[in-house]
Amino acid sequence: MHALLDHRAAVQSSAAVLSRLRDASPRVHCITNTVAQNFTANVLLAVGAQPSMTVSPEEVAAFAASADAVLINLGTFGRERAGSIGLAVTAAVTAGRPWALDPVLIDRSPFRANLARDLMGRGPAAMRLNAAEFEALAGVPATADRVTAFAAEHTMTVTLSGAVDLVADGRRCVTLTNGHPLMAAITAMGCAASALVAACLAVEADRWQASLAAMTIFGIAGEQAGERSQGPGSFAVNFIDALHQLDATALIDRARVS
Amino acid sequence: MHALLDHRAAVQSSAAVLSRLRDASPRVHCITNTVAQNFTANVLLAVGAQPSMTVSPEEVAAFAASADAVLINLGTFGRERAGSIGLAVTAAVTAGRPWALDPVLIDRSPFRANLARDLMGRGPAAMRLNAAEFEALAGVPATADRVTAFAAEHTMTVTLSGAVDLVADGRRCVTLTNGHPLMAAITAMGCAASALVAACLAVEADRWQASLAAMTIFGIAGEQAGERSQGPGSFAVNFIDALHQLDATALIDRARVS
Amino acid sequence: MHALLDHRAAVQSSAAVLSRLRDASPRVHCITNTVAQNFTANVLLAVGAQPSMTVSPEEVAAFAASADAVLINLGTFGRERAGSIGLAVTAAVTAGRPWALDPVLIDRSPFRANLARDLMGRGPAAMRLNAAEFEALAGVPATADRVTAFAAEHTMTVTLSGAVDLVADGRRCVTLTNGHPLMAAITAMGCAASALVAACLAVEADRWQASLAAMTIFGIAGEQAGERSQGPGSFAVNFIDALHQLDATALIDRARVS
Repeated sequence: MHALLDHRAAVQSSAAVLSRLRDASPRVHCITNTVAQNFTANVLLAVGAQPSMTVSPEEVAAFAASADAVLINLGTFGRERAGSIGLAVTAAVTAGRPWALDPVLIDRSPFRANLARDLMGRGPAAMRLNAAEFEALAGVPATADRVTAFAAEHTMTVTLSGAVDLVADGRRCVTLTNGHPLMAAITAMGCAASALVAACLAVEADRWQASLAAMTIFGIAGEQAGERSQGPGSFAVNFIDALHQLDATALIDRARVS
Repeated sequence: MHALLDHRAAVQSSAAVLSRLRDASPRVHCITNTVAQNFTANVLLAVGAQPSMTVSPEEVAAFAASADAVLINLGTFGRERAGSIGLAVTAAVTAGRPWALDPVLIDRSPFRANLARDLMGRGPAAMRLNAAEFEALAGVPATADRVTAFAAEHTMTVTLSGAVDLVADGRRCVTLTNGHPLMAAITAMGCAASALVAACLAVEADRWQASLAAMTIFGIAGEQAGERSQGPGSFAVNFIDALHQLDATALIDRARVS
Repeated sequence: MHALLDHRAAVQSSAAVLSRLRDASPRVHCITNTVAQNFTANVLLAVGAQPSMTVSPEEVAAFAASADAVLINLGTFGRERAGSIGLAVTAAVTAGRPWALDPVLIDRSPFRANLARDLMGRGPAAMRLNAAEFEALAGVPATADRVTAFAAEHTMTVTLSGAVDLVADGRRCVTLTNGHPLMAAITAMGCAASALVAACLAVEADRWQASLAAMTIFGIAGEQAGERSQGPGSFAVNFIDALHQLDATALIDRARVS
């Protein structure tokens, strides 16, 4: 009974996070790859957040310091961008803003995996990644137990996304089965999910709850969009519409957390 | 009576600008941010213009010199891009091509605001920005009188976009009430509007008239798209379709200039 | 009669290439311009390929070496990107992976045209370009005979795209009349076609056949999307859906190769 009640409370808290996003319209500064920038910005706008995207070393600290949360995504990476990431993280930490880490495709690049390990030491509030990326980072299979242990060891919330999403900190671990297969058929979905995690961190101090809210919003909008799409092209369009229309009631009705 | 007639003539001139865009297919070289590049290119193609987008210092002068107009947008800015902007402006000015300035988000970055001030001294034909950006640049509230005075002082046309658009040079100032609330719900709309101002400058020597034509085309297409959209995702798609379909007759019927 | 049978066999081989793309899900590393990255990634995903897009010198060799094919597109070019291209080509050649070249807009930039000429000496399996780009590169008009001679001289397959596509190596030359006028009304279509050529090279050793398969898939999906679109905005969406739905039977029914 206790676990059931917790899940229901978590879903209601997720609905409250969605409402606060719409009301507070938090600024989210995103250092993300050029493939994902446009889609990520539209995802953030669709839930009520205000995106900014500059990566230039001359400006990034000013943008990060005046944002409510920061996303660090390691895609289309390079030395200049590594410098900008360092400046943005320092600015966020100094200003007391939460930041989220997305170590995208670190399984393909040792350079990027090393950077991800360095960044984990600088206090990200949350990380979102897929199973292959987790295994490259942690060196162990992406089971619920291992992810929970990893989150505890690094004092952050870890979200593993896939057909079933898993959200864990050292104390809590839930799975989320909302979503749709077409979510894997367009680019930048994972990157945009991580940006939404950052947005939720801006309006919810409990990092695990913020991460769960983001993935619930994302999965339900994906499910709704998938039901009315003919393929990945129309899915991307319908997904933004669904995010824009999603309200607390629909979220509570549809969430499948266990 | 005089003012009324002027507005009607301005609308008819805007319709003529749209027709010339379709016929002349001007080349517009855009230095713009990576978030906005794809959408901006599709907006320009939808009205008949030919976009190019390189920002590299090795190439940008050749592209700007062989274009019919140039857009300088300060988004996702950096030192290399600042150098490229200098080269592109010099090439445009030397070749006698008009250029438009979009000082996007200068209210968030002192570095970018300083650059915008430098660039204003290099003879932009037109500038498009929102109220917050105007206030950061001019240091005064974005009222019609202040915008007109600022345009007169800097000898250029200033377009202030928002729920109501305002187009002013030192002598003329009109407001435009076409548009739709969903225009504020997707990224890169302002950046694309500035690119359309540049395109219109290529086919209309009266800079105020070119700016007004661009904003009229943009606002009407937004209005038409908004009427048939379920949210910002479908809006972005329908907006490109509406731009592609818009003709002189529909523009004259729908324009609301006063 | 002989020629007729060859064309039919070529169409059936193109259908087999499409099936192998879906089954093998080849990795395609794309060095392409920032305007085209998102659309290109979604095109590749829609046919079953796995895109990656980093251009950073620190990572590009690792990505290229672990990919099944590489695309080099010269858009939004610069010195850093030129270095990355060199590293990616070396990695691809060393690992025995095919790579495709897209010399986009070399008619606008002498710097870029020189680079294209250098890269042609490094063994691309295939090149895709339009008539203006061919003329800038080869210095002769883009007739079928000249394109065939050029392909023979440089030992590669050359695909010339336009209202009618032409695919030639030194021995074979066919024309393809699938497609739709709206394909010319959105940005990045040519860039995405080149990425699809690279993807087909990963699953088909005959470079001419791989190029023909890519252009056939592309042209038919464009034709299907054009039939149900109201303009370039909806076309881009329907095109991705059509690519995702296209199967071997529809390809064989619709291909117009002569």
